[in-house]
Amino acid sequence: MAVIMDGIALRNRILNELKIRVDKISQKPKLVAVLVGNDPASQIYVRNKEKFAEIAGIETDVIRMPETSSTNDVISIIEKLNDDKSVNAILVQLPLPKHIDTKTVLNTVSETKDVDGFTDTNICKMFGSGNNYIIPCTPRGILEILDEYKIDVAGKNAVIIGRSDIVGKPTAMMLLQRNATVTICHSKTQNLSEYTRNADIIVAATGKIKITGDIIKPGCVLLDVGMQRDENGKLHGDCDFESCEKIAGYITPTPGGIGPMTIAGLMENVIDITEKNM
Amino acid sequence: MAVIMDGIALRNRILNELKIRVDKISQKPKLVAVLVGNDPASQIYVRNKEKFAEIAGIETDVIRMPETSSTNDVISIIEKLNDDKSVNAILVQLPLPKHIDTKTVLNTVSETKDVDGFTDTNICKMFGSGNNYIIPCTPRGILEILDEYKIDVAGKNAVIIGRSDIVGKPTAMMLLQRNATVTICHSKTQNLSEYTRNADIIVAATGKIKITGDIIKPGCVLLDVGMQRDENGKLHGDCDFESCEKIAGYITPTPGGIGPMTIAGLMENVIDITEKNM
Repeated sequence: MAVIMDGIALRNRILNELKIRVDKISQKPKLVAVLVGNDPASQIYVRNKEKFAEIAGIETDVIRMPETSSTNDVISIIEKLNDDKSVNAILVQLPLPKHIDTKTVLNTVSETKDVDGFTDTNICKMFGSGNNYIIPCTPRGILEILDEYKIDVAGKNAVIIGRSDIVGKPTAMMLLQRNATVTICHSKTQNLSEYTRNADIIVAATGKIKITGDIIKPGCVLLDVGMQRDENGKLHGDCDFESCEKIAGYITPTPGGIGPMTIAGLMENVIDITEKNM
Repeated sequence: MAVIMDGIALRNRILNELKIRVDKISQKPKLVAVLVGNDPASQIYVRNKEKFAEIAGIETDVIRMPETSSTNDVISIIEKLNDDKSVNAILVQLPLPKHIDTKTVLNTVSETKDVDGFTDTNICKMFGSGNNYIIPCTPRGILEILDEYKIDVAGKNAVIIGRSDIVGKPTAMMLLQRNATVTICHSKTQNLSEYTRNADIIVAATGKIKITGDIIKPGCVLLDVGMQRDENGKLHGDCDFESCEKIAGYITPTPGGIGPMTIAGLMENVIDITEKNM
C-alpha cells in the first residue's frame, strides 16, 4: 500500500513556519486578490486563500469586479495596486471572463508583486535557465511535498500529464532542473498507459482522465493535481485512488493532497516576494 | 534503409525562395554578426553565415571585437546596431568569452532585430503559449526538414536528447505545440536506450553521445544536431550513421543535415523580421 502524502499536514506546518517569518517583518504582508465575475469555483478558491493567508499572518483584500468589466477596467485596478506601497502581492484569480485579455492583464502585474509567477518576465526566467524567479504555486507545492517525503527525482522518469502554462509546463521545467527525465503527455498523446507504466513519478494535471492502478508502475510516486467531480458532486483527482493506492509507492489524495500544497506554495511566494522587496 | 534527409538541397531551395522575397523588398536586408574573440569554430560559423546570406540576397557585416572586450563594450556595440536603421537583424555569435555576461548581452538586442530568438521577451512568448515569436534557428530548421519530408509529429513519441536553451528546450516546445508527446533526456538520464528504443522521433543534440542502430526503433525519424570530431578530425553527429541508417525510417547525415538547416532557419528569420518591421 502506498504512503499517502498528507498535503494538509504539510500545508499547516508550512503556514506555521511562515507565521514565524511574518512576525519578523515590520509591516504585515498584504496579498490582494482581484476577482472578476461570479464563477462559483473562483469564489471558493479566493475564500480559501483568504482563510489560509490569515493563519500565516498575511493580510488580504479581495477586489471584486463585475462580470462585465473590460480589460482596461481590470488593468486600471492592477496599476493602482502596483503603485500602492501597502500591497506586497497581487493575485489575479483565473479564469477571467472570456472577453478579457488574460495575457495582457497578467502582464500588468508588477514583477515585484507577481505572486503567481505568471508575468512574461517571470516565465522567461523560469524557462530560460534564469535565476531569481517565482515558481508558480502548484509546481512549488509539488516540489515541497517531494522534499517532505525525501523523493529525489534526479535521473528518474517523470511523466507530466497536461501541458498548461500554469501547471504542466512549469512543473516539467522544475523537474527537469532537478535532473529528472521529463515527458509531457497531453490530450493528443497516443497510448498514455505506455508512458504511465514506465513512470517513476506521475504528475496528473488534466481534470479529465482516470488513471487506474493497472497502468502505473509498482512503487511509483503519484502526484494528483486534477480536480473532477463525480455524479454525486464528490471531488476526485485524475487518479482512481482505490486501485492506484495498492500499486503506487506514494500517492496524494484528492482532496487533501496537491490542493493544500498549492495554497502553501502561494503563501510562501507571498512571504518570499515581501521579504525580497522590503 | 532509411531515407537520408538532404539538408543541403533543402537549404539551397529555401535560400533561393528567400532571394525571391528579398527582391521584393526595397532595401536589401542587412544582418550584422557580432563576433567577440578568436574561437576558431565561431570564425568558421560566421564565415558560413556570410556566405549563405549572400545567396539569399542578404547583406552582412561582421563586427569583430577583441577577446578582452568587456560586457559593456559589447552592449555599446549592440545598442548602436539597435539604433542603426540600416540594420535589420543582429546576431551575437556564441559562445562569448567566459568573462562576458551572455544573458545581459543577448537581452540588449532589440526585440525587433533578435534574429536568433534569444531575448527574454522572445523566449517567454515561445514557452508561454504566446504568438508572434522567432523560432531559434536550429529548431526552425528541424521543423522545416520535418515538413519537407511530410513527417507529422502529432501524437508521436518524440525524444529530445539535450536540454540547452538554444536547441533542446525550444525544440521540445515546438514539437509539443505540434502535438507530439515530448520527452527531454539529458546527461543525468538513466537508461537512455529505453527512451530511444520507443521513440518515433529522436532529436540528438548533445555533441557527446553515440546512438547506435541497436537502440533505436525501426522506422524512426533520427534528427542529428550533435557535432563531434573523431580522432582523425572528421565531423560526425551524435548518431552512428552506418548502423542507424539500416534501422531508421529517416535520418539526417552529419555533415549535410541539420547544420545546413540551421543556416536556412537563420536566413528565414532574417527575412521574416525584416518584412515584419518594414
